[in-house]
Amino acid sequence: MSIILNNITSPSDVNILSRSEKEKLCAEIRKEIIDTVSKNGGHLASNLGVVELTVALFSVFDLEKDTIVWDVGHQVYAHKLLTGRYKDFSTLRTFGGMSGFPSREESKYDHFTTGHSSASISSALGADWGAKLRNQDSRTIAIIGDGSMTGGLAFEGLNNAGRIKRNFIVILNDNEMSISKNVGGLPRYLRKLRAKPGYIKAKDNVERILDKIPLVGAPLASGVKIIKDKLKSDIVTSTIFDELGFDYYGPYDGNDLELLIEVLSGVKNVDKPVLVHISTKKGKGYALAEETPSLYHGVAPFDKIRGAKPSSTDNFSEVFGTKLCEMAEKNDRVCAITAAMASGTGLEKFSRTYKSRFFDVGIAEEHAVAFSGGLAEKGLIPYFAVYSTFLQRSYDNLIHDIALQNLKAVICVDRAGIVGEDGRTHNGVFDAAYLRTVPNIHVYSPTYYDELEYALENTLTDEHKGIIAIRYPRGKENFKPQNFKVTGKTFDVAGNTESDTVLVTYGRLFSYACMANEKLGDKDVKLVKLNRITPVDPEAVRIVSEAKNVLFFEEGIKSGGIGEGFFSDLMIAGFRGKAELHAIENGFVSHGAMNLVLEKLKLDDSAMVEAVLSLNENK
Amino acid sequence: MSIILNNITSPSDVNILSRSEKEKLCAEIRKEIIDTVSKNGGHLASNLGVVELTVALFSVFDLEKDTIVWDVGHQVYAHKLLTGRYKDFSTLRTFGGMSGFPSREESKYDHFTTGHSSASISSALGADWGAKLRNQDSRTIAIIGDGSMTGGLAFEGLNNAGRIKRNFIVILNDNEMSISKNVGGLPRYLRKLRAKPGYIKAKDNVERILDKIPLVGAPLASGVKIIKDKLKSDIVTSTIFDELGFDYYGPYDGNDLELLIEVLSGVKNVDKPVLVHISTKKGKGYALAEETPSLYHGVAPFDKIRGAKPSSTDNFSEVFGTKLCEMAEKNDRVCAITAAMASGTGLEKFSRTYKSRFFDVGIAEEHAVAFSGGLAEKGLIPYFAVYSTFLQRSYDNLIHDIALQNLKAVICVDRAGIVGEDGRTHNGVFDAAYLRTVPNIHVYSPTYYDELEYALENTLTDEHKGIIAIRYPRGKENFKPQNFKVTGKTFDVAGNTESDTVLVTYGRLFSYACMANEKLGDKDVKLVKLNRITPVDPEAVRIVSEAKNVLFFEEGIKSGGIGEGFFSDLMIAGFRGKAELHAIENGFVSHGAMNLVLEKLKLDDSAMVEAVLSLNENK
Repeated sequence: MSIILNNITSPSDVNILSRSEKEKLCAEIRKEIIDTVSKNGGHLASNLGVVELTVALFSVFDLEKDTIVWDVGHQVYAHKLLTGRYKDFSTLRTFGGMSGFPSREESKYDHFTTGHSSASISSALGADWGAKLRNQDSRTIAIIGDGSMTGGLAFEGLNNAGRIKRNFIVILNDNEMSISKNVGGLPRYLRKLRAKPGYIKAKDNVERILDKIPLVGAPLASGVKIIKDKLKSDIVTSTIFDELGFDYYGPYDGNDLELLIEVLSGVKNVDKPVLVHISTKKGKGYALAEETPSLYHGVAPFDKIRGAKPSSTDNFSEVFGTKLCEMAEKNDRVCAITAAMASGTGLEKFSRTYKSRFFDVGIAEEHAVAFSGGLAEKGLIPYFAVYSTFLQRSYDNLIHDIALQNLKAVICVDRAGIVGEDGRTHNGVFDAAYLRTVPNIHVYSPTYYDELEYALENTLTDEHKGIIAIRYPRGKENFKPQNFKVTGKTFDVAGNTESDTVLVTYGRLFSYACMANEKLGDKDVKLVKLNRITPVDPEAVRIVSEAKNVLFFEEGIKSGGIGEGFFSDLMIAGFRGKAELHAIENGFVSHGAMNLVLEKLKLDDSAMVEAVLSLNENK
Repeated sequence: MSIILNNITSPSDVNILSRSEKEKLCAEIRKEIIDTVSKNGGHLASNLGVVELTVALFSVFDLEKDTIVWDVGHQVYAHKLLTGRYKDFSTLRTFGGMSGFPSREESKYDHFTTGHSSASISSALGADWGAKLRNQDSRTIAIIGDGSMTGGLAFEGLNNAGRIKRNFIVILNDNEMSISKNVGGLPRYLRKLRAKPGYIKAKDNVERILDKIPLVGAPLASGVKIIKDKLKSDIVTSTIFDELGFDYYGPYDGNDLELLIEVLSGVKNVDKPVLVHISTKKGKGYALAEETPSLYHGVAPFDKIRGAKPSSTDNFSEVFGTKLCEMAEKNDRVCAITAAMASGTGLEKFSRTYKSRFFDVGIAEEHAVAFSGGLAEKGLIPYFAVYSTFLQRSYDNLIHDIALQNLKAVICVDRAGIVGEDGRTHNGVFDAAYLRTVPNIHVYSPTYYDELEYALENTLTDEHKGIIAIRYPRGKENFKPQNFKVTGKTFDVAGNTESDTVLVTYGRLFSYACMANEKLGDKDVKLVKLNRITPVDPEAVRIVSEAKNVLFFEEGIKSGGIGEGFFSDLMIAGFRGKAELHAIENGFVSHGAMNLVLEKLKLDDSAMVEAVLSLNENK
């Protein structure tokens, strides 16, 4: 039991602790995080990095009225531990347990349920204006990483926040990497700022000069030093952030609790937007994570002593990455693009082997798509590998910057469908629906590794002018019937072809349908497996229209999904039987192990069996 | 006839002209633009501003191998006139004629078909890498306005371009406004740069010093001065763009042809990304447009002598703006947000009257939505007014930054449906489909002004936790039956309620359905008018399921649209009649007068009449 942590019943309990108690609190928090993440998996390195920052924020601000917005939100474990969630912390990321991200449903101190990058400044600025318009005397603080800062949305937020004339705090939590090493002009600039000795080291000299400057309208005593730091840094130079209207403070050691408290106490009294640049150590306090932070960004359960193992290569991402390397070897027009997800999408080998054709653009999915369109315009074949949920950011760019150009580009949509423990903010349950609305798109949804390889290989010769999207789930391939063969057709018919009941599905759920058929024995049904889900082959519709009963199972949202389109086509084709559409009604699906989530959604093999049997009963 | 223009048969003809001929060419281009836009309508001010820039680009670069990308593309009239499209220029923006935007189908010199803001740097960077990977010796130039530069996508492009180690040219065309006055930290910073006398005025002094510096590896003679300018400006200070990895040059007078040619000749030989900051005069050469450029941004046909009239107030945008003011007067939680479209969306009066509750965030639709979510979190009611086509940029933010929060926010989707002359890049044909995929959203699609007012008023008391979207078309309301009354129901039944044929529709097309019924006389049909298109009321489905024939007409894309969802529900409800879905098959619909476009799409009253009659014939 962590003694100090256990006594914190409300955020305001933090500030009454003595300095040494706060230090002990930090140690307790670290221990709880390491213990729980090693058991449940989760985001380790980022959370260990911000322990002091979190304790400093809780010491300086009044969480009953001030609003703290954590960008992405994968670094809120300490925040959770200090806001009444210590006792339930062991349920982190488990089915029915605590979310790994901020959650409005969990706590009134979580003002936004988040998971996507770069939105914190915008949300916080809206909240700050909202509080001001409602005459609330409060502060707003956004904490954003250097990786998230490469996203355009963060810049839009800075551009708008830079013009207000009151306190508004952005903390740039710079750990020199997001998930992988950051790229681009801004990260390079931040490196320069970090390396600049002018800010902190020139201190002594400047201090003597500043001591002679009377501080007109100086705020609280604790802030004086900070204001002086500002004057000092202005003497040295002016940063990008100053130019955008912020007062820039930093860089500071973001793991120095005392310093952070002093800095935050100072900047909360500046009547301007301020940007506090802090340097934190990812994985701080757990040696193995400090050494290899990328391995401990999002990590599966691991042994605390031996450390985490590199993740298995038995998954769709690795199959994709290996296949793309093979294609790049024989075709020099193959390019790979990632938005700061080289490791997650299986592109690490490609990035080393085909360096000149590999582009990590930072957390910038919109740019990634428009950039891919540019490559395609010159005859290259871009493969943009991206998680389904993050591709939502590029919706307009898919339409406008590629599809409209009649250019061939391949979008490799990883983590399509339920992702499991990351939950609501990370499930890929929208892509099948929103991709359907993109003109001239072809969308493939392989169930098995060899189908993914086939679909990829096929893109090299496909004459299709437009986007080719290939979507595949997180993790491993599932149950595969022994006689399964890749046909390369737009759809396949399997199961009991004599049955007058057809179960239509695609992607991962096809393997569940095969399992259901095994369970059904002689009550098994005909299966129609859609390989190309957009556009659906009219012949698939025609074949299904001859059945008596149709069950459609879809691991995606119902509204606007493949099933609805299929049923509409089916009705127009004259189908007159019974039809049931099983898909996800509410697109915000909670976290938990993937199989438990599919079970709860009634989309697994048991649900299919039940649906078939109840059809028979109602005959 | 413009003599010089008429003799230009290929872009390379421009550079062989003498200096005075080039000046005359500029005058001829201006005359053609003013003549044609005064007849056809179009973007006047932006095009007049870049005449010299266009001629300079054509003088310095080889358009047979170099790639020029115009951001947004509403300033390409001179480019079109110089790339073989002078003779057809009179067809600009007319049905079947020339597009008002760059078009790959029109010319090989248009590398990207564009219309949305802030993507040029990304597309150009992709094209530049593409050319390099294919070993092409070529230059890439992106021209982007100061307004577009506030979009996050432009920042993502800069961040990525800033790290390459070869020539890549971004021209910042700064006219101190986009459509309306620009806002935020960056525009303020650009004002500061423009005002800085250091760059150009210190010239004489610095020149003398620089003359003594030997230029190692100096490029072409014409570029020497430019390199010196760079050294000089570096002596003065370093800009944001330098920090991001660009060499910054400027600011220069962007309407000084000779200077532009000199500058561009210099920077094309710099082995780094360069940003050339030029100041142009919007509306240059047409006094009325110089005075009031916003009136001549996008303008309807006008009298060249008398000038353009402020647009009529008889349209949905004005009805919206007036109603929102009325609501703001009685409810102090009403806020209005726009992304640089206060005028187009009817918010000008609001912006003056309720200044503290009005937020123009610049061309930053993603931020606008996330920011609105922040306002809502503090209990305000945000109304984000935005064109349907631009809301595509915010797709992820709608899902993640508002819907996921269970917060009430109102999205006022202007220009929903066919927009007419702006064409493919501006039609609002996707929103009904992509909004359907957003969890917990309610989408209303009024046909008439009083319905829009009703829907808006209703948002004040609506207890719905989630997004409320209200979509309405560009321009005026259309034919309205005399007995029409706003019922406030989720759907209405009208027409011949005895008919066994039902025509289902929503939004603008309902007025066409009423016209069709008038034409059909005693063959008129039952009409079901969906007022709330997402979610559709199951009772509407039930009523329609009793009919023999169903015709669904939709001014939006078919794939993923309301019609498909309705038909899917209808089939599940047991409908066994004949069903036809009339919607837009290819989402990229060409430009032309709105009525001509609807006719071509077979979505107007004549098409409805025909569909009903052919149903009867096939009985």
